[in-house]
Amino acid sequence: MKIEPVRGTRDFYPEQKAIQNYIFGIWKNICEKYGYLDYDGPLLEPAKLWQLKSGTEIPEQMYTLKDKSERILAIRPELTPTLARMVAEKQREMAKPIRLYSVARCWRYEAPQSGRLREFFQLNVDILGSDSMALDAEVIATAIEIMKSFGLTAKDFYIRLGNRKLIESLLLSCDVPKAKVREVSRLIDKIEKIGKEEFFSECKKLNVNGKKILETLSSDIDSISVKDDSGLLGLTELKELMEQISYYKISEYIEIDLTIMRGFDYYTSNVFEVYDKSKKFRAIAGGGRYDNLVSDFGGEKLPGVGYGMGDVVLELFLKEKGKIPKYDLGIDYFIAVLGNENLDCAVSVAESLRKKYKVVIEVMNRKLPKQIEYAKKIGANKLVVIGDNEKKSGKWEEKNI
Amino acid sequence: MKIEPVRGTRDFYPEQKAIQNYIFGIWKNICEKYGYLDYDGPLLEPAKLWQLKSGTEIPEQMYTLKDKSERILAIRPELTPTLARMVAEKQREMAKPIRLYSVARCWRYEAPQSGRLREFFQLNVDILGSDSMALDAEVIATAIEIMKSFGLTAKDFYIRLGNRKLIESLLLSCDVPKAKVREVSRLIDKIEKIGKEEFFSECKKLNVNGKKILETLSSDIDSISVKDDSGLLGLTELKELMEQISYYKISEYIEIDLTIMRGFDYYTSNVFEVYDKSKKFRAIAGGGRYDNLVSDFGGEKLPGVGYGMGDVVLELFLKEKGKIPKYDLGIDYFIAVLGNENLDCAVSVAESLRKKYKVVIEVMNRKLPKQIEYAKKIGANKLVVIGDNEKKSGKWEEKNI
Repeated sequence: MKIEPVRGTRDFYPEQKAIQNYIFGIWKNICEKYGYLDYDGPLLEPAKLWQLKSGTEIPEQMYTLKDKSERILAIRPELTPTLARMVAEKQREMAKPIRLYSVARCWRYEAPQSGRLREFFQLNVDILGSDSMALDAEVIATAIEIMKSFGLTAKDFYIRLGNRKLIESLLLSCDVPKAKVREVSRLIDKIEKIGKEEFFSECKKLNVNGKKILETLSSDIDSISVKDDSGLLGLTELKELMEQISYYKISEYIEIDLTIMRGFDYYTSNVFEVYDKSKKFRAIAGGGRYDNLVSDFGGEKLPGVGYGMGDVVLELFLKEKGKIPKYDLGIDYFIAVLGNENLDCAVSVAESLRKKYKVVIEVMNRKLPKQIEYAKKIGANKLVVIGDNEKKSGKWEEKNI
Repeated sequence: MKIEPVRGTRDFYPEQKAIQNYIFGIWKNICEKYGYLDYDGPLLEPAKLWQLKSGTEIPEQMYTLKDKSERILAIRPELTPTLARMVAEKQREMAKPIRLYSVARCWRYEAPQSGRLREFFQLNVDILGSDSMALDAEVIATAIEIMKSFGLTAKDFYIRLGNRKLIESLLLSCDVPKAKVREVSRLIDKIEKIGKEEFFSECKKLNVNGKKILETLSSDIDSISVKDDSGLLGLTELKELMEQISYYKISEYIEIDLTIMRGFDYYTSNVFEVYDKSKKFRAIAGGGRYDNLVSDFGGEKLPGVGYGMGDVVLELFLKEKGKIPKYDLGIDYFIAVLGNENLDCAVSVAESLRKKYKVVIEVMNRKLPKQIEYAKKIGANKLVVIGDNEKKSGKWEEKNI
């Protein structure tokens, strides 16, 4: 009986898994260099966890099920609400600021296409504890450091940086009614996907001036005039963040872009995306500041900022840039065996080498040429042949393959 | 709004996640020393994947859902059928024997209790390609090596080893009708759980002689008399395996136990379990040989053997034995900052140290004693204080904390 895997999923055979492990390894390594600690939550959570603050799209894309007690559970479509729930639960005993990262398997029901699968993995990096822009600068620095560790440069990628308070203030100044700000924001977020023309016509339907909006959002932040307190605060946040970012000497990677909104409702301030310069791919990472999320999930107010970086777009991008290292199984030794009567000796040799090395031993009693063919296929570096003489003498030699 | 996590799941805060990473690290390290390669499959698969060969209990415990195209999918309750599906798909291009391992997140709907959760992680180790008992000996050796790497000895754990062909032959010799062999096997598998008395009374209901069965299965394998071909083959397999095991010098860990059956229907020959000597816990690992599994899933016949080792019982056992290492975040440096005007210098120092070390920097502009308190809480090893003098001179000192 042949059973097909689910569409939008991947089978990770060793070669594919090695690429994933390479990506995960860099993610973890950089997060830990910045003092972020690994955590994880359950794969299934009550579905309402994502109905509260994750926007309109995410809850529609969830894989939900009823368990035997009729509770509606969802496979996590993203990790941030789990983080907020966990922090809300233990925030008093956790030293602030709280620095956390996780590599989370997530599911979303979407039409599978280039850069978008139903099952994906996402690095989550978050820092909570203060409204200082030093936190935002640090998490953005980790994202850039990760991209650089993959061998990418300012020619390959950049960060688009916006601020929701400022953008919303500018929308109001363009005569967008307050009740329509969120809807217009979502349209702005989709401009790259739908194109300007459709954006304008969608704006028309909402009875707002798309051209004016786009013109306003494209103005230089030094020449922007903002009058309301929230907008002024947003502008200050953005300028302060740019100052903090300069300390990391990464300003060249940053571009202010007030058309960046991000889909999640929980962002309240700065929002940012990691993008390839060719704009060929979707966002490689996206994040922002969420000042009320922990209190939304039953905790005390604890402002924070974080981002998610998915594996699917990133891997496509790395492949295009030739930045995936050559596959190497890393097998150090292959122990060939001449006849099953010498297997005991071969096992002894293998076991002693395993104290230091990765060792594969012949277990199928094949003729030597077949064994050597196998050793080459699995990419073993060195060959040891164990026959009657080696067993008798207790001595053996190694050869390069 | 406070949302409770799902029962039978765990929140992995950093301290708990560090324990998990310690366990996963040893699992991976030993598997790779034996030349096994990391792989993974999707978390959701068509539910029928486990309805085919995983026995009666597993399909009942699955978390299933209908996707938007009305397909019934299940969150994987175990990984072996996924392995069989993947190998069946690519077996021609894969070098034999195929050595694979995976650390898989799995779900089963069971009553949460000590050693049994609904969400758990399971190491899977498999070798496919031959009916030689050398394969069985090697995977059993990896299980023992893993346990030894956790600091456990022959005083703490052992392997119970049975053989389905032999056990089934012995059941037939005890006048168990062929049609009832599977049902009686499942009862035998539960003896530890239900006790002998209930076993006998259940046997009575099936109209078979429980006492005779238990007596027969408890006899020494050297004195067992078997007449049918299948039973004789099983006995030969078991003896040959014991010989192969002796090459690894691990015979002291092995105990023949013909009451070991394992629940999965796909096992056809040797079956084994890793057990704590006190028998206080459930099986720490369980596995066996499955000679038809790949062909059952649409491939060519490719005999194999493998096991699963769960994280939940193992962690309880390690804790009881005091074998969980002390928690250490591994933060090398904390960079204290005297005033935000020195943050630029502090960031430079942190960034240069991060080339080699794990470095946490003050981002909350606190007074120095508060900063040092934080540095101690996160377990940083060394302290660097950056103030006006350090910024002016470009020189700084480090102190142990």
